[in-house]
This record gives sequence, structure tokens and C-alpha cells, in this order.
Amino acid sequence: MTSNAIDRLIAGLNRLPGIGAKSARRIALEMLTWDTEEVTALAKMMVEVKTAVRRCSVCFNLTESDPCPICSDPRRDRSLLMVVDYVADLLAIEQTSTNRGVYHVLDGRISPLDGIGPEDLHIQELLERLKQNEIKEVVLANGPTVEGDATAQYLGQCLEPLNIKVTQIARGLPVGSDLTLADQVTLARALEGRRELL
Amino acid sequence: MTSNAIDRLIAGLNRLPGIGAKSARRIALEMLTWDTEEVTALAKMMVEVKTAVRRCSVCFNLTESDPCPICSDPRRDRSLLMVVDYVADLLAIEQTSTNRGVYHVLDGRISPLDGIGPEDLHIQELLERLKQNEIKEVVLANGPTVEGDATAQYLGQCLEPLNIKVTQIARGLPVGSDLTLADQVTLARALEGRRELL
Repeated sequence: MTSNAIDRLIAGLNRLPGIGAKSARRIALEMLTWDTEEVTALAKMMVEVKTAVRRCSVCFNLTESDPCPICSDPRRDRSLLMVVDYVADLLAIEQTSTNRGVYHVLDGRISPLDGIGPEDLHIQELLERLKQNEIKEVVLANGPTVEGDATAQYLGQCLEPLNIKVTQIARGLPVGSDLTLADQVTLARALEGRRELL
Repeated sequence: MTSNAIDRLIAGLNRLPGIGAKSARRIALEMLTWDTEEVTALAKMMVEVKTAVRRCSVCFNLTESDPCPICSDPRRDRSLLMVVDYVADLLAIEQTSTNRGVYHVLDGRISPLDGIGPEDLHIQELLERLKQNEIKEVVLANGPTVEGDATAQYLGQCLEPLNIKVTQIARGLPVGSDLTLADQVTLARALEGRRELL
């Protein structure tokens, strides 16, 4: 609009997920107030991440070393394997520090409408890992969507003949929310998944 | 968490305006799915903008050439000057294509609580421009906040002795919204600024 360089940067930032035209403009103008060194540092980080980071050959987590820090951490319980749809899910769970086991990233969800079938996910590699007899429990932590549920269901069928304990993380009321605000499906799943207290 | 390079990038992105921890994580993971060339191109744009872009010596717009494309556009009405708080405001107005005049960017708003006084803004430069007798109308387009109004009021006092027509863009109901949703002050200003239709 006033400078090609700014316009190009705004268009570039606009391609990032969750960044609309107005956010892109705001970020571009903010960057202009930064020191050149700061902007250069951020630009460098972006390029570095592309060259430094690859997939863990065991669990498909993003990592700089193979196997990834989680897979090679001796304090991790190797008999407990949590299956997640995406690396973002793994990171979210890691932030809660509640999984003492290891992971397997499927890198997608079964979605016939988008043409994504089981063969597009790292399911074969999961079954190979389970053959090693080290794993005692598989926790399915697929997303609470139709696609996530379909993926979990498919995995359940695959795992049934293996005689391994398979669990799924609970669907229910999000903590801190209100019962009256919950949608019908969530409320129904919360009732279905009720636990004995006494 | 799993890779220092990703963690650093997330922390870097987190410093951008409007990008929280979760957005930063999402953007970083998305970048990893991009081609290296795409990420490098965006990184390059960021650095280029810092070296290519400076302030227009006339209106303080951001520009690659001095004076800026608006100030040097012969089709612009040089007798009509619109005063804005920030470059972002100028860009927003330019997108509407409703200002056929030129601009003056103050680069801030008077805000005693933040220690920002009139001397911190480009007000002296504005008064110098007005001395050249070319400008017939000054349109105050300061933001509709306490600080924006304080800035407009101060400018009004400065401009009074100069015998130039001074106008202010209207405060009123945003188009497409609902009367019942408007806050009291906006509604009061809308009534105050009512116009004769017949």
C-alpha cells in the first residue's frame, strides 16, 4: 500500500495459521519497531528449525536428535504407549507432565471425506512397535472429534487380537466450565463415562 | 520441550503482538510442514523490511522512498491533510480509498498516565507543515479513545490561531451493528453527532 516490502511481508505473514489480514498488518508494523537484530534473530530461528528438526524414527515426534529426547529418556515408562494424532497433541500433553510413558504420533486422523485412510497414518509402524512385546498398555489420546473417534475405533480393531490393555482418555466436562454450557454430545459422554465415587 | 530449535522459535513467535503461547506453537509446527524455500522466503521478507523501510520525512508514514508514495502522488489533494495516531491507522484508512488528501502520522497519542506528552508526538512537524499555507482543511482522525480524544483536543487548541478549517471524523454507531449493542458513550456521541436528513 505504501511500501512493497511491507506489503510482501504482510502477505507472507497472512499465510500463517490463525493470522488474518489485520493481525498480519499489526505484526508487520510491530516488527518495524523492533531492533534489526531482534528481527534477524527470529528470521534465523525460522530457517534453523527447518534444517535442524526432523522426525523421530521411533515415535514420529519432531526432534533434533534421533531417537527423540522422550524415546531416549531412561526415566520414561516404555511399557506405556500413548497414541496421539499430531505432534501438537504430544506437546500439549507433555505440558501437563501427566504421561510418564512414551508416544506414537499417527500424523493425522482417518477422514474418508478428506481422502485420508488408515494407510496414510503411521499405524503400520505402531503395530510393528507393539510386536516387540515391551508395551503393556496403549492409551488412545485421539482428538475428541468424529475423525479422532473413527481413528480410535479403527486402532481398537487392530489392537484387539494383540491382547494388550487398550484405554482411551476420557471425554467429559471441561474443568472450570459450566454444565449448562456443555453441548449435548459432551454431556451424554460425561454421563456415560461416570465413575463410582463411593 | 522436544527440540531446542522449536522451543526457541515458539518463544520468538510468542513475542509478536497478538500471538499467545498456543498460537506460537501452532505457527511453529505449521512452518515445519512448509517447504524450506517458503520459510526462507518469509524470513528474508522480515529482514528486508527492516533494511528497506524508513519514515517519510514529510508525513512520517513508513516508506521505501522519501517522500512516501502518498506524499509524492500528484493526484493527491495537498490542501486536505488527515492527522492519524499511527501508521496502522493510515493503512486502515487507505484501504477504504476515502481520503483523497495527504496524511500526517503523529506516532502516538497524548497519554499522561504513560508519560506521553505532546512533545513526544510529531506535532511540531505538523505545525511547520501548516505554515506553508498549502493546507485548507485538517481532518483529525485520532482514535476514538480517551487518549485519542485528548490528542485531538490538544491539536484543536494548537490549530485554532491558524485559521484553518479543522474537522474530526465522526463517532457513532458502527455500520452493521445493533443499536442495543452499542455502549452508552457511543450511543450518546451518535445522538450528539446526528445529521439533518430533510
